[in-house]
Amino acid sequence: MALRAKVLYDFHSENPGEISIAENEVVTLFSEEELEGWLEGENSRGEAGLFPASYVEIIRDHITSNNNGLSLPQAKVQTSYTPSQSQRGFGADSSSFHTSQGSDDDWDDEWDDNSPVANAPQGLGSSPPLHPIATSLPGRGSTPQHQQQAKSSATVGRNLNRFSTFVKSGGEAFLLGEASAFVKDGDRICVVMGKHGPEWQEDPYPFTCTIDDPTKQTKFKGMKSYMSYGLTPTHTNVQVNRRYKHFDWLYARLVERFPVISVPHLPEKQATGRFEEDFLSKRRKGLIWWMNHMTSHPVLAHCDVFQHFLTCGADEKAWKQGKRKAERDELVGANFFLTISPPSVPLDLQEVENKIEGFKAFTKKMDENIVVVNTSINEFARKQMSGFKKEYQKVGQSFKYLAQAFELDQQVYSVGLNKAISYTGEAYEAIGEYFAEQPRQDLDPISDLLDLYKGHLSNFPDIIHVQKGALTKVKDCPKQEGELHDRCNIISFATLAEIQHFHRTRVRDFRSQMQHHLRQQISFFQKITAKLEDTLQRYDDDQ
Amino acid sequence: MALRAKVLYDFHSENPGEISIAENEVVTLFSEEELEGWLEGENSRGEAGLFPASYVEIIRDHITSNNNGLSLPQAKVQTSYTPSQSQRGFGADSSSFHTSQGSDDDWDDEWDDNSPVANAPQGLGSSPPLHPIATSLPGRGSTPQHQQQAKSSATVGRNLNRFSTFVKSGGEAFLLGEASAFVKDGDRICVVMGKHGPEWQEDPYPFTCTIDDPTKQTKFKGMKSYMSYGLTPTHTNVQVNRRYKHFDWLYARLVERFPVISVPHLPEKQATGRFEEDFLSKRRKGLIWWMNHMTSHPVLAHCDVFQHFLTCGADEKAWKQGKRKAERDELVGANFFLTISPPSVPLDLQEVENKIEGFKAFTKKMDENIVVVNTSINEFARKQMSGFKKEYQKVGQSFKYLAQAFELDQQVYSVGLNKAISYTGEAYEAIGEYFAEQPRQDLDPISDLLDLYKGHLSNFPDIIHVQKGALTKVKDCPKQEGELHDRCNIISFATLAEIQHFHRTRVRDFRSQMQHHLRQQISFFQKITAKLEDTLQRYDDDQ
Repeated sequence: MALRAKVLYDFHSENPGEISIAENEVVTLFSEEELEGWLEGENSRGEAGLFPASYVEIIRDHITSNNNGLSLPQAKVQTSYTPSQSQRGFGADSSSFHTSQGSDDDWDDEWDDNSPVANAPQGLGSSPPLHPIATSLPGRGSTPQHQQQAKSSATVGRNLNRFSTFVKSGGEAFLLGEASAFVKDGDRICVVMGKHGPEWQEDPYPFTCTIDDPTKQTKFKGMKSYMSYGLTPTHTNVQVNRRYKHFDWLYARLVERFPVISVPHLPEKQATGRFEEDFLSKRRKGLIWWMNHMTSHPVLAHCDVFQHFLTCGADEKAWKQGKRKAERDELVGANFFLTISPPSVPLDLQEVENKIEGFKAFTKKMDENIVVVNTSINEFARKQMSGFKKEYQKVGQSFKYLAQAFELDQQVYSVGLNKAISYTGEAYEAIGEYFAEQPRQDLDPISDLLDLYKGHLSNFPDIIHVQKGALTKVKDCPKQEGELHDRCNIISFATLAEIQHFHRTRVRDFRSQMQHHLRQQISFFQKITAKLEDTLQRYDDDQ
Repeated sequence: MALRAKVLYDFHSENPGEISIAENEVVTLFSEEELEGWLEGENSRGEAGLFPASYVEIIRDHITSNNNGLSLPQAKVQTSYTPSQSQRGFGADSSSFHTSQGSDDDWDDEWDDNSPVANAPQGLGSSPPLHPIATSLPGRGSTPQHQQQAKSSATVGRNLNRFSTFVKSGGEAFLLGEASAFVKDGDRICVVMGKHGPEWQEDPYPFTCTIDDPTKQTKFKGMKSYMSYGLTPTHTNVQVNRRYKHFDWLYARLVERFPVISVPHLPEKQATGRFEEDFLSKRRKGLIWWMNHMTSHPVLAHCDVFQHFLTCGADEKAWKQGKRKAERDELVGANFFLTISPPSVPLDLQEVENKIEGFKAFTKKMDENIVVVNTSINEFARKQMSGFKKEYQKVGQSFKYLAQAFELDQQVYSVGLNKAISYTGEAYEAIGEYFAEQPRQDLDPISDLLDLYKGHLSNFPDIIHVQKGALTKVKDCPKQEGELHDRCNIISFATLAEIQHFHRTRVRDFRSQMQHHLRQQISFFQKITAKLEDTLQRYDDDQ
């Protein structure tokens, strides 16, 4: 029986030798061995060629299926798990890794120019993983059969793709028992069984953190200037000053440290909004959202590097010390999983798989639909600021014209009416302004929220890939070591806890933002009503 | 010194021999004698030719001016006063005159087809008077010098232009003492001196009249059908049934009967509105406005023909009797002025002239500006029914998409939010509908009001011309008969009373309509607010 694979994402061939494949299409594989992230096969249109291995999922017959009455031993070749180049943030973390090794001198650069973190994370949605770069395309017809056999002799094979998130995140190394580090009690992260499944242990010391308007700071006797944000966490109530690049550095640390936690994306480095609103104000709002997500995450909120960031004062030496410590943190990647204390309850693998699949479908749909929402509300905002305003103002202006005509009749019984109509004209002009100002109050915040969630949604494919990688590896060797199972469960518990946290945060954020929006809309329409009521009274003056 | 004239209205040449002239331009006249409504002269661009005499005003040096030390006797040639062909309603009344002479059998025609009154009055605004029709254009170079001399020998000359409103209305005949008819006490119309100047004596028996939705009636065993309106005047409280053609007939009678009263125009015969709203409903609304103006006019409300129209029941014979009586009414045109009892106070001619001039400027400005208002509110209505509705509904739809995505997560703490967001989507769709429905409530009535006033404003140029014709004739012979002055005063009193009535009605109508508009807008925004408040509560359900 020919080896087949189901296509997970659309891939459009860009180079000779590649073939295009479409989501849900079933392709025939010439070999299940991938080379540098590519597989060779034939698509449903009969075209033969290469496509990214990460875009397909090999279809396997289960060992239990009664195929022609024969019970075949399950193939030991592992399915590939998104061998993308750093899926999370699309290259952001890999470039950030470099930052982390940069000398402290780098910190004195202009606040947002020449930053070594050139590719700040952007909310790109749950797009398919990047396919292997064309330059690494293997020659057609190459038959790396030996390589595979050499590997498949191992009971629990390593993933061939060294760029796989599963591998990069350290998930594979941990699963294979290769992780090793000393975990202090303070570093322990507990997953507990809550009412709705596994969840991060509730934060016993919750806190929040305010972010002030940024202030312009200078150094080197005014030669260099940068913007500084005053942060005041509620648990210390001491303000510290941070620049955007500090946030950026912190973000890189967090992404490296927590493979299955969705670290909120920082606001975009350059924001050119439809409102041409002050860039700094927009960035500050983005940072507030970011901070809010950080402080409300039980794991992120209390990790050392974040605490250092929030609490280290102006003492340059202390700062550098904490910075170096964070950059040398051993509990990153594979070792992160060592810090997790799972609940002592069994996990049903099928149930876990279903939950993960359900969540995958959820994120895909949410990602698609928030694009629609964002488009609609941005367009609605634009219309209110242009069309709606213009219409009300045109009507207002024409009422004023009417009043001007009426003013030519200065009889005493006309004067009151003339004034009232003129006032009505002004009221309509004011209402036009109300419309133009309103989107900032109630549509922009939703848009900001959607941006933040777009970031989260683009994190989850990688998180899911790590969990799925672990699960598949365990399923491939069902009777192997109990420790493998335990380690896989740790990954599953962490993933499920993070999904639970995502849902809770999502429900909280969207509820409060929709409420905020509606309250703002209500007071907006009440303001209009009050203006009109005031206007109506002008007509009573000289009845 | 060359005889010059100031151009009152733009005129665009349409035939060989004519020249174009522009408002406020000063043209040189070759002769001040007009022939069939035309004058010959040269415009400021040096073009020589004919233009309508009614479009210009001859510039005269006052007898008191010390021109070269010579005191020239004042020219006795009268300025022309809009020699249009039936200015009022632009031909409506002249065609209506025919109706009035038609046999009673005509009344059985289809209710709005083949009506003899083909050119129902339309609100054309205070456009310049129609210029003399091209077919009556005199041959160029004709020198009708003898004609003029023959006429100018009379001390108080007749206006050469037999199409002048002043002549046609009977104003001239009355002024010259040629009117003669028996006036019963019941026909007497009193002008009194009110707080703000001359006014029609207040109606001692005010009433109103309701108009029901029209019903379809058939005659000749169903062979013919027509729409019938049930009218119920409050002073009889007995319903009578009338067809549109009855209104039309009545309108023609009133226009003929009252030269210096602005008879409200009937709603247009064919109305194709921007809303494609039911034509009959629009006509009924128009008739209600019309009726409202009729019953609130002290003179019109109680005149015989209107009372006959309002009170004559189903008795065919009685109807025809009243109809014939109205058509044979002697107190039309010149004789109308005989019915007027002026207050016994002197009138200052200069003050009257100033008032009339002021009113002329007023109507011009009002006419211009209500066009702007009408354009704005119609566009505003259109936008609310299309763009505004669409934007709210698009946002509503996108919220529903968001809810649909969220519904993929059916955890118990998500369900309430999902429902609330879905409900929000529906609320926005409903608000979109509110916007689309609103213009009928608060913009259409203003538009209807403006239409009615557009009709009034198109009536006033003729009314003013009658008064000015009388005033100029009197000024031309300052020492002539006291009776001429008295008769001129009657015309002035009537005109001023009508102007006063116009202003009062205008102030009343615009005040009440603006109030209505604002109240409707307030309840509209309150409705939206209530909808949003209801929506907001949905978010509390499972906090």
